[in-house]
Amino acid sequence: MADAHTKLLLSEDQIPTHWVNLLGDLPGDPLPPLHPGTMQPAGPDDLAAIFPMALIGQEVSPEPEIEIPDEVREAYKLWRPTPMYRARRLEAELGTPAHIYYKYEGVSPAGSHKPNTAVPQAYENAQAGIRKLSTETGAGQWGSSLAFACRLFGLECEVFMVGSSYDQKPYRRSMMQTWGATVHRSPSDQTEAGRANAGSPTGSLGIAISEAVEVAAQNEDTNYSLGSVLNHVLLHQTVIGQETMLQMELAGEEPDVVVGCVGGGSNFGGLAYPWLRRKLRSGSGPRFVAAEPAACPTLTRGVYAYDFGDTAGLTPLMPMYTLGHGFVPPPVHAGGLRYHGDAPSLCALVKAGTIEARAFRQNETFDAALRFARSEGIIPAPEPAHAIRAVIEEAEAATEAGEERVILFGLCGHGHFDLAAYDAYLAGTLEDPEFSEADRDAALAALPPGAPALA
Amino acid sequence: MADAHTKLLLSEDQIPTHWVNLLGDLPGDPLPPLHPGTMQPAGPDDLAAIFPMALIGQEVSPEPEIEIPDEVREAYKLWRPTPMYRARRLEAELGTPAHIYYKYEGVSPAGSHKPNTAVPQAYENAQAGIRKLSTETGAGQWGSSLAFACRLFGLECEVFMVGSSYDQKPYRRSMMQTWGATVHRSPSDQTEAGRANAGSPTGSLGIAISEAVEVAAQNEDTNYSLGSVLNHVLLHQTVIGQETMLQMELAGEEPDVVVGCVGGGSNFGGLAYPWLRRKLRSGSGPRFVAAEPAACPTLTRGVYAYDFGDTAGLTPLMPMYTLGHGFVPPPVHAGGLRYHGDAPSLCALVKAGTIEARAFRQNETFDAALRFARSEGIIPAPEPAHAIRAVIEEAEAATEAGEERVILFGLCGHGHFDLAAYDAYLAGTLEDPEFSEADRDAALAALPPGAPALA
Repeated sequence: MADAHTKLLLSEDQIPTHWVNLLGDLPGDPLPPLHPGTMQPAGPDDLAAIFPMALIGQEVSPEPEIEIPDEVREAYKLWRPTPMYRARRLEAELGTPAHIYYKYEGVSPAGSHKPNTAVPQAYENAQAGIRKLSTETGAGQWGSSLAFACRLFGLECEVFMVGSSYDQKPYRRSMMQTWGATVHRSPSDQTEAGRANAGSPTGSLGIAISEAVEVAAQNEDTNYSLGSVLNHVLLHQTVIGQETMLQMELAGEEPDVVVGCVGGGSNFGGLAYPWLRRKLRSGSGPRFVAAEPAACPTLTRGVYAYDFGDTAGLTPLMPMYTLGHGFVPPPVHAGGLRYHGDAPSLCALVKAGTIEARAFRQNETFDAALRFARSEGIIPAPEPAHAIRAVIEEAEAATEAGEERVILFGLCGHGHFDLAAYDAYLAGTLEDPEFSEADRDAALAALPPGAPALA
Repeated sequence: MADAHTKLLLSEDQIPTHWVNLLGDLPGDPLPPLHPGTMQPAGPDDLAAIFPMALIGQEVSPEPEIEIPDEVREAYKLWRPTPMYRARRLEAELGTPAHIYYKYEGVSPAGSHKPNTAVPQAYENAQAGIRKLSTETGAGQWGSSLAFACRLFGLECEVFMVGSSYDQKPYRRSMMQTWGATVHRSPSDQTEAGRANAGSPTGSLGIAISEAVEVAAQNEDTNYSLGSVLNHVLLHQTVIGQETMLQMELAGEEPDVVVGCVGGGSNFGGLAYPWLRRKLRSGSGPRFVAAEPAACPTLTRGVYAYDFGDTAGLTPLMPMYTLGHGFVPPPVHAGGLRYHGDAPSLCALVKAGTIEARAFRQNETFDAALRFARSEGIIPAPEPAHAIRAVIEEAEAATEAGEERVILFGLCGHGHFDLAAYDAYLAGTLEDPEFSEADRDAALAALPPGAPALA
C-alpha cells in the first residue's frame, strides 16, 4: 500500500497537442442539422452571424484530429493536465474487487471541465477580431468558465443568467463578476426576448439563450458562445479522455467500462470519445455508460427525432434524443443536466447501442455523492454524482461476479457551490422528481412539424 | 514561451518523508510556555488531558526532523504534492522583471493548507484510542479540515462554530456535515462555557475555544485539536516548504524573498521554515516577509510578552507578540488572520529581525486579489490576498530596481466560500478597519499580571 499510487499525474508537455474528432468514425451517414425555416440542411453560412469561421470549420470538419493552437495549450497549463485518481478508499468502503479510477476536472479555476472549451472559443473569437462574447448560464458553471476565458484573451463577456439561479446562487454570479463579466438576471430589459418575457418570475434557459443569441446577432463585434451539445464543444473536451489514456497506461491497466454523466454531452464525449474511437477502429474496448437524471431522462425516455436546440425554436434542428424543446425539467440541483436534448453524435452512438444510458433519481445520486465525499474527500457537484451512482452499480456487479473489473469515470466538477443541496439531502428534504408518462406525451406532441422522421 | 513551464509538479513519491522541526535552530534559548495558575514552565503533563502523547512529544521535540507516519503520507496523497505555479500572467499584468512563484494549497479537499495538520492530528489521536475530537472554528476552514481528517481515520468530530460565522457561512457548515461532523452554533447549550455566554448574540473564537476545550477535558475518550500556533501544527505544515524546495530546483531558480500571510502562523511557518533553516545554517538565503491585516496587526503593532492563547485565559501563557488576549478583531473577511497572538517560534524570529512583518488594509488586499484572479484565474481566499498584496510591493520594487528578483509566496487557499466579500469589494461597500492607538492601550493594559517580562 505504501508505494501504491493514489493519483496519476502527467507533466505539462503531456497536454494533448490535438483534439480528437470522432465525426468520421461514427456509424452510418451523418445526419445534417436543418435550417429552422426551410428544413433544408444548414450550412456554415447559417452560423456565421454568431460564430467565428474557425469554430464553424471545427464544427463540420471531417479531419480525425485537429491541432490545438499554442496559445490555447499555454492557457490549458493553468490547470491541465488534470489528475486521475485511483479511488482506493471508495473501493474499500464498497468492499469491491473493482479498481475504480476517476478523472478530476474540478481543479480548473472555474471548478469544472467547462474551461476546456471556453478557452479555445474565446481564443478563436479574439483571433477573429470579435470584441465581446454573449452567453446564457443556468447554475453558473458555463457562465463562470466563459468569464474566466474571456478575461484571458481580453474579450468582454456578457452573461444572461436564469433568474431563479441568479437569485439562489449569488456566489456563482460574484465569481463571474470577479473575472470581469457583466451578468444580467434573465429575463432582462436588455433585449427584445427579455422584454417579451418580462412576466416570467424565474426565467428559463430557453429565454436566456434567446437573449444571448439576440445580442450576438444584432452586434457586429459580438459573438455567441455555447457550452455543450455542438460538435466543436465536444471536440475541445477530448483533452480529458486523451489524458486518461496516458494515465491508465501509467496505472498499467485498461478500463472495462467508462462512465460519465450527460447533460448536453460535452463532459461525457470529452472523456469517452478518445476511448470510443479506439474501440470503433479496433473492434474491442471498454463498455460505455451514460448517466442522466430521472427527472430529465433524454437518452432513456426521449424520442429520436429532429428538434430545436432552444426553447424558442431559433436554432437549427438537430437529430437527437429529445424530450421536446418546450420541456422544462424540474429544478433538480444538477442544473447542468437539465437539457431537453443531447449532442447529436452522442445520441447516434446511443441509438446504435454503442453507449448504454441509465437514469437515476436525485436522492440516490446524493447518497452516492456522500459516500464518495466521505471516502475520497472531494465533494462532487450534483452532475457527476450521477456518474458515481452508476459507478457504484458497476462496482457492485463486479463484487457479485467476483471480478477485478476496471472502472473509469469522469468527476467533472466540485460541489463547492452546491452545498445547499447537500444540506437538503442531509435534512431529508431533497425532492425526488421523476419524468411522467404525461411529460412524454407532451414531448411527442410538441415536436416541430415538417421535419423529416428519423429511423 | 511555448515550452516554458507554468506549473511545477512533483510525483507522489516526492511527498516529504519527514517534517522539519525548526526549534533547535532558533536563535537564543527557548522560552517555555507557562502554566496559567503557577506561572511556572508548563510541561508535557499539563497538556495530557487534551492532547495525545505523540503530539505532545512533537510539540517539545528537539529533533531536527520528525518522520511522517506511512498512514499520514498515504492520506496526503489525496491532494499532495500540491502544484507550484510560475505566475507568468500576473508578471505580465504587473510589467515586472520579477519572477513570481506561488505554492497552491487550495487543491486539498477542504480548500486550504489546514488538512496538512488535521490529518496527522486525527491519525495520532486515533492511534491513541481516542474516539472523538472537539475543536472550534471561525470562518470554517479549520473545522472543515478536521471534519475531513476525522472521517479518514474513523473519529467523530464535534465543531463549535462562532455564531456569526455559523449564520453567515452556511456552506462551510454544510461542508463539515457532509464529512459527518457535528456542528454547534457557539455559544451552545452543550457546555458550561456556552451556557455562561448564552447572552452573546454573535459568539467569539474565545468562547468557542472554551467550549471545545471543556468537552475534551471532561470526556476521557475525547481530545481537543488546534489548527495553528502550536509547534506541532507548524511542524506538520513544513511539507509545504519542503516541496517548494524541490519545485524551485525544477524551475532552476532560488527565491530572493519568501512571502506568506500570518494568522496564527502555520501557513507562514509551513512555507518558510524549511527555507529558514537552510538560511540560519548557511548564513545566506532569501528574505522573509509576513503579511497580516492592519485590523489585527499582531506582529507590527503588538507587544512582545507572555499572554494567554485564548480569550478566557485557560491555556498556558506563551511568549509572543500579542494584541492582548481580550482583543476582539473587527470582522474582516480574512477570518483566519483574526487572532490576537501568533506562534511563539514565528514571533521570536520577527523579534530577532529574521522575518519582516507588514500590515495591509482590507481593501488593498482585495484589490490585489482581484488583479491576481483576473490574471492567474484562481480566486484567492481573503487570507492569502494579504500575501499577494505584499508580493505586488516586492514586484514593484524589482521593477524600480530593474532586477529579475525571484519571489515565492504561499497561496494557502481558494476563495470559493468568500465570494460575498468579493461582492462587497466590487460594490465599493467593503469596510476598511484599522487598529487604533486606543486598541493598543487596551491591549497593554490587559496583559496578564504576574508573568515575567520579555526583553
